[in-house]
Amino acid sequence: MDQHSPNSAIGILDSGVGGLTVVKEVFRQLPKENVLYFGDTLRCPYGPRTPQEVRRFTLEIVHFLSRFPLKALVIACNTATAAALETVRKNFSIPVLGVIEPGARAAIKISQHGRIGVIGTQGTIRSTAYEQALKRIDSELFVFSHACPTLVPLVESGSGCTDGARQIVKKALTPLKQHRLDSLILGCTHYPLIADMIRRELGGETALINSAEETARELSTVLHHKGMLAEGGFLQGSHHFFTSGPPAPFRLIAEQWLGCSIEVEQIMTESMVKNTVG
Amino acid sequence: MDQHSPNSAIGILDSGVGGLTVVKEVFRQLPKENVLYFGDTLRCPYGPRTPQEVRRFTLEIVHFLSRFPLKALVIACNTATAAALETVRKNFSIPVLGVIEPGARAAIKISQHGRIGVIGTQGTIRSTAYEQALKRIDSELFVFSHACPTLVPLVESGSGCTDGARQIVKKALTPLKQHRLDSLILGCTHYPLIADMIRRELGGETALINSAEETARELSTVLHHKGMLAEGGFLQGSHHFFTSGPPAPFRLIAEQWLGCSIEVEQIMTESMVKNTVG
Repeated sequence: MDQHSPNSAIGILDSGVGGLTVVKEVFRQLPKENVLYFGDTLRCPYGPRTPQEVRRFTLEIVHFLSRFPLKALVIACNTATAAALETVRKNFSIPVLGVIEPGARAAIKISQHGRIGVIGTQGTIRSTAYEQALKRIDSELFVFSHACPTLVPLVESGSGCTDGARQIVKKALTPLKQHRLDSLILGCTHYPLIADMIRRELGGETALINSAEETARELSTVLHHKGMLAEGGFLQGSHHFFTSGPPAPFRLIAEQWLGCSIEVEQIMTESMVKNTVG
Repeated sequence: MDQHSPNSAIGILDSGVGGLTVVKEVFRQLPKENVLYFGDTLRCPYGPRTPQEVRRFTLEIVHFLSRFPLKALVIACNTATAAALETVRKNFSIPVLGVIEPGARAAIKISQHGRIGVIGTQGTIRSTAYEQALKRIDSELFVFSHACPTLVPLVESGSGCTDGARQIVKKALTPLKQHRLDSLILGCTHYPLIADMIRRELGGETALINSAEETARELSTVLHHKGMLAEGGFLQGSHHFFTSGPPAPFRLIAEQWLGCSIEVEQIMTESMVKNTVG
């Protein structure tokens, strides 16, 4: 991984397809950059797994990606960021970004009264990673964290904005309402897809923070300060996708979400096959 | 300047009081950080001076600030960023931030259709620094830059939102209207103070970008990735202000804007006195 130059790729990894929200923002905010994505769809979801297991899976993917010349790495999954970011950072000399700190910093920027909410999977909320990232910068913030285990299945059901879906969102968010939050971090890469329903439920007073947008922005900042932005002139970056699961359904979802055709390759290292049943 | 540690100070400099908008955001977004500010009120404004002169003044201030242990430096003035950022970066090993790149990156994040406007002083617009920062990242952006020399005097007159003031803003912004801009960078530290009038003139379709907020956010990102965020626990940072002009009027404006009492010291190096008449 030390052969990095401005035209090396950015490696982005996720437990499955959720990290494509980050990819879409990297394509948009950094169109000249080369991107390699790994979606571990075979072992998805990471949410209910132990931190040890998530850390092991993340390191396996990072080792696979590090066969290519990389200049930065993005862990585009809240659960994997909470479990593995520090370990990956210790092991590699290139910049490693998670999705938690960019969301936390954006919340601090936007928040007018220091009353910040966080929603995420049980694993993310249990890790208290957002609370730590926020309070490390400002100990006086009020932070209310709340796990919403019903929202990822809702997004994955693809039911859209039906009455039933609105009821699920309403119930999931009820505990937030008494806290007069001025901003809410969508601490799971799936949630931006139901941002409209969340916004309608909480009203316009609470600013919603999309970690995917914020992570791409911070990637741009970090690459710039390292002198590592792509020197593409008018060239657009090239993009390549790997998945541990079947490539056809991955391609379908990815092309729909990204709005362009992509190359997908299925990769299963020996340890991935062994670890399929968590 | 090499004695930097997480508890070293952040140096912030400006031609006068405009950079206090950045200071206010650093206090808010990074409350544990120690800050040293230098406002060159004696030689303000920098806008009409040559780039060579602005570069010389900026380097003089940086040399003064570098007597203290610093871990980062912020050039909180668009004109000085355009003229001197690269020179200062080449001469110092600590991170040096300007106000132009953070505004550019925020515009790219917020822009939905890639139609970005920039307003600033004649010096800033003539330098094309925003256009370069934007197009370096994405060559396909549409960028419309426009100098608004009447707006700084308007802010400094403190006239507030009168009919006359609205007419001046309307006239200054007229050339922007035909370009269907989806975002507008306020490329001068004075402009956020008349953001309401600018917003009313352009309508809600154009998102306004406040470089002060964005610069503080990027400072937070850069310090984090260098492992240099203050380790203050529950302690708040300490702040000290220097000005080359009379301290009393500086203190008055600064305390009003920052909402807290501050220490101000007048500093004039020999070269500052010599260079007073540009």
